[in-house]
Amino acid sequence: MDAGTDPPRAAQHPDAPREAGTGAALAELAGLLPEGALVTDPDVLEAHRGDRAHFSTPGVPAALVRARGTEDVSAVLRVAARHRVPVVPQAARTGLAGGANAVDGCVLLSVERMNRILDIDTVDQVAVVEAGVVNAEFSRAVARHGLFYPPDPSSWEMSTLGGNAATNAGGLCCVKYGVTGDFVRGMTVVLAGGEVLHTGRRTAKGVAGYDLTHLFVGSEGTLGVITELVLALRPAAGTPLTAVGFFPTTAAACAAVSDYMADGTRPSLLELMDRPIIDVVSSYRDLGFPPDAGAVLIAQSDRGDLAPGDLKRFAAAAERCGGDTLVSGDPAEAEMLLAARRLVGTAMESVGSYLADDVCVPRGRLAELVEGVAAIAERHGVRIPCVAHAGDGNLHPHVMFDPADEEEAARAHRAFGAVMDLGLDLGGTITGEHGVGSLKRDWLAKELGPVGLRVHRDVKRALDPYNILNPGKVVDLPG
Amino acid sequence: MDAGTDPPRAAQHPDAPREAGTGAALAELAGLLPEGALVTDPDVLEAHRGDRAHFSTPGVPAALVRARGTEDVSAVLRVAARHRVPVVPQAARTGLAGGANAVDGCVLLSVERMNRILDIDTVDQVAVVEAGVVNAEFSRAVARHGLFYPPDPSSWEMSTLGGNAATNAGGLCCVKYGVTGDFVRGMTVVLAGGEVLHTGRRTAKGVAGYDLTHLFVGSEGTLGVITELVLALRPAAGTPLTAVGFFPTTAAACAAVSDYMADGTRPSLLELMDRPIIDVVSSYRDLGFPPDAGAVLIAQSDRGDLAPGDLKRFAAAAERCGGDTLVSGDPAEAEMLLAARRLVGTAMESVGSYLADDVCVPRGRLAELVEGVAAIAERHGVRIPCVAHAGDGNLHPHVMFDPADEEEAARAHRAFGAVMDLGLDLGGTITGEHGVGSLKRDWLAKELGPVGLRVHRDVKRALDPYNILNPGKVVDLPG
Repeated sequence: MDAGTDPPRAAQHPDAPREAGTGAALAELAGLLPEGALVTDPDVLEAHRGDRAHFSTPGVPAALVRARGTEDVSAVLRVAARHRVPVVPQAARTGLAGGANAVDGCVLLSVERMNRILDIDTVDQVAVVEAGVVNAEFSRAVARHGLFYPPDPSSWEMSTLGGNAATNAGGLCCVKYGVTGDFVRGMTVVLAGGEVLHTGRRTAKGVAGYDLTHLFVGSEGTLGVITELVLALRPAAGTPLTAVGFFPTTAAACAAVSDYMADGTRPSLLELMDRPIIDVVSSYRDLGFPPDAGAVLIAQSDRGDLAPGDLKRFAAAAERCGGDTLVSGDPAEAEMLLAARRLVGTAMESVGSYLADDVCVPRGRLAELVEGVAAIAERHGVRIPCVAHAGDGNLHPHVMFDPADEEEAARAHRAFGAVMDLGLDLGGTITGEHGVGSLKRDWLAKELGPVGLRVHRDVKRALDPYNILNPGKVVDLPG
Repeated sequence: MDAGTDPPRAAQHPDAPREAGTGAALAELAGLLPEGALVTDPDVLEAHRGDRAHFSTPGVPAALVRARGTEDVSAVLRVAARHRVPVVPQAARTGLAGGANAVDGCVLLSVERMNRILDIDTVDQVAVVEAGVVNAEFSRAVARHGLFYPPDPSSWEMSTLGGNAATNAGGLCCVKYGVTGDFVRGMTVVLAGGEVLHTGRRTAKGVAGYDLTHLFVGSEGTLGVITELVLALRPAAGTPLTAVGFFPTTAAACAAVSDYMADGTRPSLLELMDRPIIDVVSSYRDLGFPPDAGAVLIAQSDRGDLAPGDLKRFAAAAERCGGDTLVSGDPAEAEMLLAARRLVGTAMESVGSYLADDVCVPRGRLAELVEGVAAIAERHGVRIPCVAHAGDGNLHPHVMFDPADEEEAARAHRAFGAVMDLGLDLGGTITGEHGVGSLKRDWLAKELGPVGLRVHRDVKRALDPYNILNPGKVVDLPG
């Protein structure tokens, strides 16, 4: 393509001049959207430029639209398509991969105010929600009806169900219940040209046509903007009981994970902390961890009367692998035991900046991954404390660095990449639950290979022919 | 398009002349494929023309290829793409919607001989198989390792894992464990041009890029040909115990379904038989059903020591809704109780031809659906005995007709359509697990609506630009 005749509209350089099309688009939108929905105040735009990703600098947005409903989203995309203005969907911006970062000259399209729970159906155990409903608010609302919405990303008190679906968010209880996508039955999604698509279903089963619903799940706003969701629910689970196992080595803890997962029952939570992350948490708050523990496993069962038996079997598995286990007698004590895991985020924030990685490997290779990460930390001269959703083989290495120290930041970034390479070498994936966004786009191409990348681009072009939907995220489209 | 310059290659009329391209393609394939893989014997072709769908006349194939591996599949598609020859993927041809029916001049591409189990990993509880492995053989193989592959379509003794994935097959135990797609983690799929795509993963979680894996699941061979699968397994379940509940009316039985499904545990099977299907089964073999039973529910629990308690709760739910329940004391008796359900297929075959419909509605509306089907039977003067995967709201009405009686067959076909219309009116889908194929293509367009249909066509064009992959199935592409 000759850049002189048809300049790319979604240029990534920070100071690119606004396109003529953007001004016309904003003028049109001002006439179409409800009072106050279109925001161009520079302070507000600055506050909405990015999500929580490091090493992924957001561009400069032209405007923010706070959509009130599917019609507003449709209006934005209709106008944006005509003027070829990039649109970046956003909600709580708790993502860790730059998926919600502005691109230059874009309209930030926020669904955060679309936060109505439209239906909770106790007979069919299904709910219909707008995309901006916060996960925790929804979970509490369905709990009041004796129901349970399992997906629980760590951001659940802030992140929205639309964002959870757009990133196919995971969480602590995936090991038993699955990820967000496993609970998405249908959705309303606005396409690149502004058309409104209802896809999927309300029923438990259905095979009518292609599974477009799960093509949009995890597509990070690059194929359409999710505005409503039909979500499956379950009957309420029991109050969880907790056990903590202390192991001499990570390998011993990982062996206990595989031993316990061979059992017919699934724990509702099975988390691993390695020694470096225990040190970070212990330096933030002394929780009395034994100084010789090489790794810790935290397990929960939410099966009511059966939970004590489940945890006894966990303790037996731990013992077979050289671990000592403390089993809680009651839910309050259980919550205390889980405190160490819950403190990871806060404790990490207290010691400085870090890159949260998110590699998932076959469960049987988790020990190799954790040990390999320790070697990478050593080699690159950085600290990489790790926590894992161990039952799923999903490791979160926290690559620590001082952002003021450019050389250290560069080393951290290299270590971050080395961790993903190791994950791929072990038969895993570069991202278990955080997504690709702009942060991991180059590694995604590596994971997909040339045929996979080509199909991704073909699908992207089919659904977004002018590349206006979150352009440059997940996959790039060469001109 | 001017038909004079570029005639459509996948014409549907039975006696269409073979395209010149077909002869050249077959000559090329003869040189590329292993000895015996390319078959043009008219008797063999005739035997492979169609699957088990009624009202869906297969076309006349030009050849059958019995692929030995992914390379053979790739060779066929590479050559077929160049010569624009349609390719219809097949395996056991147990489908009920015409998905495996020949189109005129096509190459039937069978993966039936690709039947190796490549890996069973007991630590990660995952297996890798070729597409032609028969479901039951696989299920027995993993059982020998103490593992469990739940998807159990009625055809499981014959149907293949590739066909199960291509149609996203359901079965009896979906109510607890989910459908085939819930167990597909990754696959090797050959694209329309012959390129080999590896998609998905071996890990429990992963969000690297678009979920192409589940785009291929259920796409009925219209987007690519699945040659290998990575399947999730579970630890072995307990031997199931069974209960049978007898109810005065269908509505009472459906009320018991919703009552029991509000419980925190899922039955491993929950089947409904209405009075007309009880009559069909009873006339085939007297199983001692009470003559005044308006409907029967069969429930199973496979939770070992917990199963008796589960079935006691089922019996209590049944009693609350006016039912009488017989709970089995041991597995052998359980098998006898399930015999009635297992006899449905055989008993239906014994009384003549029928169209198996497959509507799924929200569980809370199942009684309305069954009662509405009875009214449709009355209105169209046909018998429509029904069996349902009740826990999923998935009803199989069997529209009976005499194929020698054209007028009755036409009435049966109209009733078949009326059942789907009713399913849609009740907020359901035209197909819960059988698929669309050629049989339900026109109803699919109705369910999808214009935007959904357009996106389906866009996706189909993106992945199969020359429309050679199972053309005319699921969605048509207007010229």
